[in-house]
Amino acid sequence: MQAKGILETALYVDDLDAAKAFYRDVLGLTLHAEMEGRHVFFRCGERMFLLFDPQTTIAPNDSFPAHGATGPGHVAFELEPESIDAWRERLAQAGVSIEKELEWPNGGFSVYFRDPAGNSVELATRQVWGL
Amino acid sequence: MQAKGILETALYVDDLDAAKAFYRDVLGLTLHAEMEGRHVFFRCGERMFLLFDPQTTIAPNDSFPAHGATGPGHVAFELEPESIDAWRERLAQAGVSIEKELEWPNGGFSVYFRDPAGNSVELATRQVWGL
Repeated sequence: MQAKGILETALYVDDLDAAKAFYRDVLGLTLHAEMEGRHVFFRCGERMFLLFDPQTTIAPNDSFPAHGATGPGHVAFELEPESIDAWRERLAQAGVSIEKELEWPNGGFSVYFRDPAGNSVELATRQVWGL
Repeated sequence: MQAKGILETALYVDDLDAAKAFYRDVLGLTLHAEMEGRHVFFRCGERMFLLFDPQTTIAPNDSFPAHGATGPGHVAFELEPESIDAWRERLAQAGVSIEKELEWPNGGFSVYFRDPAGNSVELATRQVWGL
């Protein structure tokens, strides 16, 4: 028996509005739902990308198991090789500094930057993982 | 322009060996690579699930942008409705307590439990998100 796939990927942010603007306007994700002071949820393809304010979600409550991390997390979104230059341009236009670019020995390519909360965000080609 | 999909989902754990055993043996993920004291990487369908020891990855280094969160994070894996009972049994056999089960108003179903590091792990049907 095997978990079938990842349905929800979560990051934690101290400023939900800033994070919402970043993931919507810079990364182009589709806003799905939000609750002021608690969360902003995006759809990304057939999967969900969830942003939480850990100060709210770590509090014990009757609705959901408590969770909430602090410090920079990490997520990678899929990058199509032919759109590398377009993403460099998009990030520059948005004032987002590229922290690092990596050409992997197997031909994969990654570009790293930060979201407004300091999380490490990566755009990576599937080739990075041999997918 | 839109990020195409989520390629890497990351969680942080204090005990990589315990986490490796949990995600491999209980959730059935496929081990992809590991580096002692730093990370254990799993493949999950066409996506990667990455476990890091934040004490290592938060240290400034020349190879990768530093990241590393503490406190309980969250991830959800896809649950096929017909396998809910089988997962309850698998968790019970592995000694993993179910923290909560939720039937969502739209017909979705979630079951929540903890990984050995305390992260909130969910198995959720696609219906939870109307997918």
